[in-house]
Amino acid sequence: MKPALAQPKGMRSVETSFHVRYAETDAMGIVHHANYIVWFEEARSAFMRAYGTSYRQFESEGVQLAVSEVQARYLAPTVYDQQVTIRCWIEEVQSRKMRFGYQVFDAASTQVFVTGYTEHICITPDGRVTRIPQKWRELFKTTSQNSS
Amino acid sequence: MKPALAQPKGMRSVETSFHVRYAETDAMGIVHHANYIVWFEEARSAFMRAYGTSYRQFESEGVQLAVSEVQARYLAPTVYDQQVTIRCWIEEVQSRKMRFGYQVFDAASTQVFVTGYTEHICITPDGRVTRIPQKWRELFKTTSQNSS
Amino acid sequence: MKPALAQPKGMRSVETSFHVRYAETDAMGIVHHANYIVWFEEARSAFMRAYGTSYRQFESEGVQLAVSEVQARYLAPTVYDQQVTIRCWIEEVQSRKMRFGYQVFDAASTQVFVTGYTEHICITPDGRVTRIPQKWRELFKTTSQNSS
Amino acid sequence: MKPALAQPKGMRSVETSFHVRYAETDAMGIVHHANYIVWFEEARSAFMRAYGTSYRQFESEGVQLAVSEVQARYLAPTVYDQQVTIRCWIEEVQSRKMRFGYQVFDAASTQVFVTGYTEHICITPDGRVTRIPQKWRELFKTTSQNSS
Repeated sequence: MKPALAQPKGMRSVETSFHVRYAETDAMGIVHHANYIVWFEEARSAFMRAYGTSYRQFESEGVQLAVSEVQARYLAPTVYDQQVTIRCWIEEVQSRKMRFGYQVFDAASTQVFVTGYTEHICITPDGRVTRIPQKWRELFKTTSQNSS
Repeated sequence: MKPALAQPKGMRSVETSFHVRYAETDAMGIVHHANYIVWFEEARSAFMRAYGTSYRQFESEGVQLAVSEVQARYLAPTVYDQQVTIRCWIEEVQSRKMRFGYQVFDAASTQVFVTGYTEHICITPDGRVTRIPQKWRELFKTTSQNSS
Repeated sequence: MKPALAQPKGMRSVETSFHVRYAETDAMGIVHHANYIVWFEEARSAFMRAYGTSYRQFESEGVQLAVSEVQARYLAPTVYDQQVTIRCWIEEVQSRKMRFGYQVFDAASTQVFVTGYTEHICITPDGRVTRIPQKWRELFKTTSQNSS
Repeated sequence: MKPALAQPKGMRSVETSFHVRYAETDAMGIVHHANYIVWFEEARSAFMRAYGTSYRQFESEGVQLAVSEVQARYLAPTVYDQQVTIRCWIEEVQSRKMRFGYQVFDAASTQVFVTGYTEHICITPDGRVTRIPQKWRELFKTTSQNSS
């Protein structure tokens, strides 16, 4: 069963590629599963940079986008030195919550290694949940078709 | 909304406690979300040790328990130096798949910070999926009531 | 050549023990060398806790103890699930700099795996180097004999 | 005191660049010091790739290049999203030991953030120290002028 590389239809996705680091492997000889969560985050950062802004800027405006949920499904392992590509897109934007989707795959063969999503809420510096700021919601929505 | 500390009924759970490491925090001042996945794994290790065996022994018998899925919900942050407790139990055992459940909480106040699960499959040294060895399935089942 | 377990004479050292996490291993099947730097830091935290204070408290007083140098020598590998002990002590305290020493070893056999040190400077919230606060220097000195 | 960007004279160095990941920061708001050790390693990987080989190939020939010592000096912090460049070169090659040098810097301003080195020994699959294979030593020497 070789999972197909999903084409998130109509969504603007951003891809980022890098080589697997040795430190990211474990004694099984493959990439440790927790590192894909870090890669998801780096793909989010690349997504933000691609849209002319950055998460650093987001934070500088006094709100933080906290992770409220993460899920990952591991379909095939990746190994040291291998070049991997992470595709990231926005799946959904609500007033208080948003969801990013991810695929870790091989750009040449289109084999998918890991899929997943993260959900996020906005919190104020003192830790209270708040609405996602309007200008950010607009930006996020223009990059997604699944939101309404 | 303060989440209640679920008591996984009838299941034998194992708890492990430690202080949050500084390296586990991020620029938000709280523990980075990927580290909870590592804590889940350490709680699994403690679970195995508590049942008189260890995952290292599992591997020495020629099979590996690979993570096929992980999910975590983040309810409240944890910070550096704080003592956290991870409760781990087996939620389900099938012939080819098993699931562990987790809660990260404060042992004193019973406040829950993170909940989650991991699913696992057995793979041979050459990477094929195989049945969970009978003796391990027995061991896992005796520690769970949700399996049949 | 089996390295001897050095007894830092006259110094008050603090030991902390834990099991090696699976995530800390790499594809060599042993603990990745960068993780010992994290263990050094956790040993420092245990040192502070043992003296009735904590690094968190240190930070809350408006100064940060930044790492200015780190060195580690790797003598023997450690593996998953193994129980390791980290001994930490203060080697030197100056007005603007201090040095911690470390040994990672097996408490039962006294085999030493890794030795190292970290040097620290004090910085203000806006990033300038400053003197180590008097009360902290006093505390540190009472736990060391190499300072003058 | 702004450290100058050393030009390792006559040595062939390789540079690799990437954005700082959020997961690499800590509660100080800057990159955690242990992560530079991981960056050093990734720079070594880039060095090997640049010379038409890879560390993966090295391992496939039955020897492992184990880290025997690491040192890093932290001159200035780096932060999330910042683009950093790591320069890596071979400082010394002996029959049983070799040393890589590193600089983490800003490619635009040439500001140096961290400098360091790692020393390596060759070990056989069963853990014994051995000579660095002739063909690798040749390769390493052609990329360095400090060896004899």
